[in-house]
Amino acid sequence: MNEPNWRAELILRPVGFVRSPLKTSLVGSEKGALTGEEQLEHIRGKIRQIESLVSELVIAPELEGLLDDIEDFSHIIVLYWPHLIPEERRRIVHVHPMGLTDVPKKGVFATRSPARPNPVLISTVELIEHRGNVLMVKGLEAVDGSPILDIKPYVGLYPEITNPRFPGWLREVLKKP
Amino acid sequence: MNEPNWRAELILRPVGFVRSPLKTSLVGSEKGALTGEEQLEHIRGKIRQIESLVSELVIAPELEGLLDDIEDFSHIIVLYWPHLIPEERRRIVHVHPMGLTDVPKKGVFATRSPARPNPVLISTVELIEHRGNVLMVKGLEAVDGSPILDIKPYVGLYPEITNPRFPGWLREVLKKP
Repeated sequence: MNEPNWRAELILRPVGFVRSPLKTSLVGSEKGALTGEEQLEHIRGKIRQIESLVSELVIAPELEGLLDDIEDFSHIIVLYWPHLIPEERRRIVHVHPMGLTDVPKKGVFATRSPARPNPVLISTVELIEHRGNVLMVKGLEAVDGSPILDIKPYVGLYPEITNPRFPGWLREVLKKP
Repeated sequence: MNEPNWRAELILRPVGFVRSPLKTSLVGSEKGALTGEEQLEHIRGKIRQIESLVSELVIAPELEGLLDDIEDFSHIIVLYWPHLIPEERRRIVHVHPMGLTDVPKKGVFATRSPARPNPVLISTVELIEHRGNVLMVKGLEAVDGSPILDIKPYVGLYPEITNPRFPGWLREVLKKP
């Protein structure tokens, strides 16, 4: 087995960008003043807002052919870059998950925080329309102007995940037993 | 809205690497001689093989803290780089999905081909054990030595995807109606 060079740089270039009414991140700073149940309600409200949000994925015109036949799928996975997160936040090790200050800090890899060593975010969304180099989608959490890195069809999970285990703080956000 | 600079380079650095008994890709070259139903059976066999495969994610020792509490989740999402794919294959526009030569070529974004402009692959796997800087997982398609880019907890899909639409060639591979 070849062990990789830890310092090797892998280069990505945006293939498009997001056009969205969403101008700031789901976990916004405005909830700093909120506590306990208020924070949970704030996050639940944001999740509901995202679920019905319609955005556009604008792909570079010269890459339009890569989208051919994507409308055969009802859902797609979008990989994008959180361009509003400052570079130095890539070095964070522990965070309060979803900014919930009542929950002890967790390792970044145990959270979906956008501030991570390689900030490639993923979101599975409904594909509403494919027109030329533009895809209209529903449920995308990316803010306006986010660089798009990749688009993949949603093909399900094999084997299916029937009963995933989540920690208590996430079950509380999602109101799951 | 700020339109990004299409040529902007985004830099990733591996956070670890995969240790796996799998030495070559799921869609291997050996099936070049197969036709029709043989190709389908070959792919179905590979999928079954991956489902029970146990691999290790070896994280850089200095990043071990980012894994804290990840064992609160039963499943995680691994982002990795297909290091065996030559750089020039990032410019491919159309491919036979899963190498099925009987199926007309599709745009790369309508397939899960590892040869894509930004070859960041994702796989949702079962987390079996967390020991120090090593995670043992089941069901990872990445070949031995693949650089790991990110690890995220699997938190489900919101809203849930109850009845995704797939094209005929994928339904045939998966033997779905």
